[in-house]
This record gives sequence, structure tokens and C-alpha cells, in this order.
Amino acid sequence: MADNRPIGVFDSGIGGLTVLREIWDMVPSEGTIYFGDNGRAPYGTKSKSTIIKYSLQDMSFLEEQNVKMIVIACNTASAHAYEALKERADVPVIEVVTPGARCAARATKNGRIGIIATKGSVNSGVYKAAVEKEAPEGSQIFQQACPLFVSLAEEGWWDNEITDAVVKEYLTPLKEAGIDTLVLGCTHYPLLTPAIRKFMGDGVTLINAGKAVAEVVRKTLADGSLMSDGVNPVRAFYTSDEPELFESVASPFLGRGLPAGTKHCNIDRYSI
Amino acid sequence: MADNRPIGVFDSGIGGLTVLREIWDMVPSEGTIYFGDNGRAPYGTKSKSTIIKYSLQDMSFLEEQNVKMIVIACNTASAHAYEALKERADVPVIEVVTPGARCAARATKNGRIGIIATKGSVNSGVYKAAVEKEAPEGSQIFQQACPLFVSLAEEGWWDNEITDAVVKEYLTPLKEAGIDTLVLGCTHYPLLTPAIRKFMGDGVTLINAGKAVAEVVRKTLADGSLMSDGVNPVRAFYTSDEPELFESVASPFLGRGLPAGTKHCNIDRYSI
Repeated sequence: MADNRPIGVFDSGIGGLTVLREIWDMVPSEGTIYFGDNGRAPYGTKSKSTIIKYSLQDMSFLEEQNVKMIVIACNTASAHAYEALKERADVPVIEVVTPGARCAARATKNGRIGIIATKGSVNSGVYKAAVEKEAPEGSQIFQQACPLFVSLAEEGWWDNEITDAVVKEYLTPLKEAGIDTLVLGCTHYPLLTPAIRKFMGDGVTLINAGKAVAEVVRKTLADGSLMSDGVNPVRAFYTSDEPELFESVASPFLGRGLPAGTKHCNIDRYSI
Repeated sequence: MADNRPIGVFDSGIGGLTVLREIWDMVPSEGTIYFGDNGRAPYGTKSKSTIIKYSLQDMSFLEEQNVKMIVIACNTASAHAYEALKERADVPVIEVVTPGARCAARATKNGRIGIIATKGSVNSGVYKAAVEKEAPEGSQIFQQACPLFVSLAEEGWWDNEITDAVVKEYLTPLKEAGIDTLVLGCTHYPLLTPAIRKFMGDGVTLINAGKAVAEVVRKTLADGSLMSDGVNPVRAFYTSDEPELFESVASPFLGRGLPAGTKHCNIDRYSI
């Protein structure tokens, strides 16, 4: 028996589209409803209590759309709010921290793993704990917050001299620590891959959790008998800011043109 | 008869503190209640309709505190929401665009004026129109959005090599246009004054509207018989994110230590 309800995916804004594209590629017959909380973005500079409140509202909206699964396509929200969401949800909740941590643990050869993320994620300590849990015994984990990276990604400065200088400023301590694996722990960061790779060198494996998250989505659907039968899956987009603004910035993150028809969602109506 | 009600001041977050400090210096006997909408900051990347909605909520909260005046200490909110707020308010509403425009018009000698601001402010066209209205006939106005400046100011990178490179990237067209006056059209930008001055040179007058706004506040109080008699004026702070987070980042913008006791305000309860 097929379950043709869509998968609900949310993020603070557009970064989660780098996860959504991997879900589309992994399970193309599944419908998706994406909510970007652009009206209150970013989450990475905000406090834990605020992020939990916003994430619960985001989930409430998606649940109202009758989704069969919630994907928290935002590292900061995953780090701070996953437990709160899981407790409240009636459907499976997927977060993006553990899949990235697992990839890093498998990739490292020298047991020296770097994590770059927002201030919120770094301060939570959740990412570091997740990598420590998965990594070989005796591994060393190095964290670095990179607040400018989100602005650079949104400004479209993915690989210029300024981005090179910012990358150098943030990543020098990780390079000097001799890491061989670096987790891109924010959904915006994959857009800066060329500049990060150039600075860190080919000897360092960059972990973009998007694919690993999509694999968890696929497995959870299969294990829970939640697969759809793939007839005209819905691909809907909602934002808490203006749809035109969302559509004007989304494509580089989604890696392709966005289907028209993004709708506005008045997210603060969803009380928690 | 003295009016000892406080002045209400709001901003998307901490930038408005660069205006508040000027108000404190100009009318030290006046009480102030500051609201920073940190939970939804920044405003500069968001759409007009969202900024109007948020600004109306911010004003509603301040009105509930029985203020005698509203100061919109945010250029983006001033550009997009001033008309909507003025229409709704029962007390005088002060915005920050016109005072800055007036200063620039008085300062220019060659009639070539630059404005740097957020994307939201630039796209609104309000700043450009205000400067055009005040400036000598035949003046030429050049605008430039500088989205990275807010992140640089909040990261504390006020005057380093990366900031120099970003300043050069954004301001080269204005320098080449031969401006002699530059409006710092976002309340975050005064923190970057050293880097901006270094690049533009001493021949260019930098306009920080803060002082001019404080002068408008003083005059409006005097003209409306709204002056207080200066007995223990209140200086209260509210934020829509966590007070500890607000207090940890506020001081550089306020130019001094923040009094303790910032309170949380659940801003989305203020329906409009």
C-alpha cells in the first residue's frame, strides 16, 4: 500500500534547498513540501530557545499540510531543536547532524576531524558530540564558527578573493591542526566548496551531509512502509517572507530552476 | 508641565543603539525604552511587506509601554514603514532617512553624493528620493547596497584586511564617481568608519545620521512641550531573542556598557 503524502522539509530560509535537491535525486517519486522561514532568517545567530520555538512552529505548519515525515534541513535547528520536535511529532523526524557526523567518522584516516558551522551550532556542542560518538576512539575534533560564510553564500561571492581571505581567516586553525576531514556543518556552506577546497587542499575530504541525509530519508521511508507510488509527486514551496524574494535567490541553492508558485505562509500564527 | 513618559526606540536588533547613544547625549534627561527585534533580525534583506508588518508590531509593543514618541532607529524600517507607522501612531514618529539626507545635502560641495545602505533600503528608492529632494539642484546621487557590512560589523571585523577588501569592492564605483559626501545609510555602518574613511580619503565627508536624528528628537520634544523634568529617567531594553545574547553583543554599538536587566519581549503576540 503506497503512502502518497508528501515529505515536509524546512529550513531557516534557502540553505535547506541544498538538502532538498539531494532528496529529489535520491527518491524522485516522493512529493515534497518545503518551508523556508526567510521572514526570520538566519537561525545561526539566534539563541536556543528562539530556535526551538521557531522550529516547532515550522513543524506545525508542515504537519497541517499532512506530511508523512519532517526533515529539519538546517544544521542549527537540528542541533538545538531535534529533541523538542521528535517529542512532539506524530511522524518520523530526520535531522542533518548525525548523517554528517557518520560520514566524517567513516572518512577520516588520521582521526582528526574539523567541523565548520554557525555560532549557534558550535555553541550547542551537539555537532562535536555527534562526531565524537561516531568517530574512532582517540579521534580529535576541532570546531570553528564561520559567521561570514552565510552572507558570502547569499551574496553570490562563492569563489573570489574576498571569500579566499575569509576562508583563510577561519580555516587556518583547522589546517594547522592537521585535519583530514572537514564537515560542512551548515546548509549554506556547500556553495563555498571551491574556495574551501582550494585552501584546504585535495588531501582533506569535505563532507556535505545532503546526500547522507537523503539516504536516511530513503531508508526511513522504506523501513516504515512510507514509500509513495510516484504518480505526479507534489513539489510545493512556502516562505514566511515574500514569494518573489524567495524565488529570486533560491536557484543556486537548489541547483536548478525553481518551479513557479511559491506561496506565503504566515508562520507566527502557528502557536506552540 | 513636564512629560515624563519615555521615548520609544526600535531597531531590527543592535544597530539602532548607534542612534540611541546620540539621543542619550543630546537629551540626557529623557527616559528611553529600546526594543531590538533580534529574534527576526536583520530587516535589510527582507521584503517591504514583511518589514512593515514587523515595524507595526514593534511600534505596538512600544505604545503599550506608554511612550511619548517613536524613533525608528533603523534605516530599512524607516525607508519602508515610516508612512504606515505615522498613519497608525498617536504620538510623533521620527525616522532616520530624512535627517541623514539633509546632512548630506548641506555637506556636499560638488553635488555628488553617495548613499550606502542595505538591499532593502536601496531597492526602496526612498533614500535616494530623500537626498534628491534636499540636495542642490543638479546634484547627482549614487547608491550602493553593501550586504556584507552588517555581518562584518557584527563579527567585530571593523578594520582588518578583509574589511578593507570588502570596502574596496563595494565603494570603488562611488569613489570613481567622484562623490564628496557619503551617507552611512544603515545603523551598523558607523562601526566600519575607520575602514571606509581609509578607502574614501579625507576629502569625502561621511554622514552618520545619528546626531542629526537626535537633534530632530530634541526639537520635536521642545516643539510639542514633551520635555521631561529629568528625574531618574528610565533606560530600559527589550529584545525578541534572549536578553543574554543581546547584552553580549550590544556594547560596541552603544559605545559603552549596557545597563543590566534587558527583558525578553514576545513580539509576535502584537497583532496588527
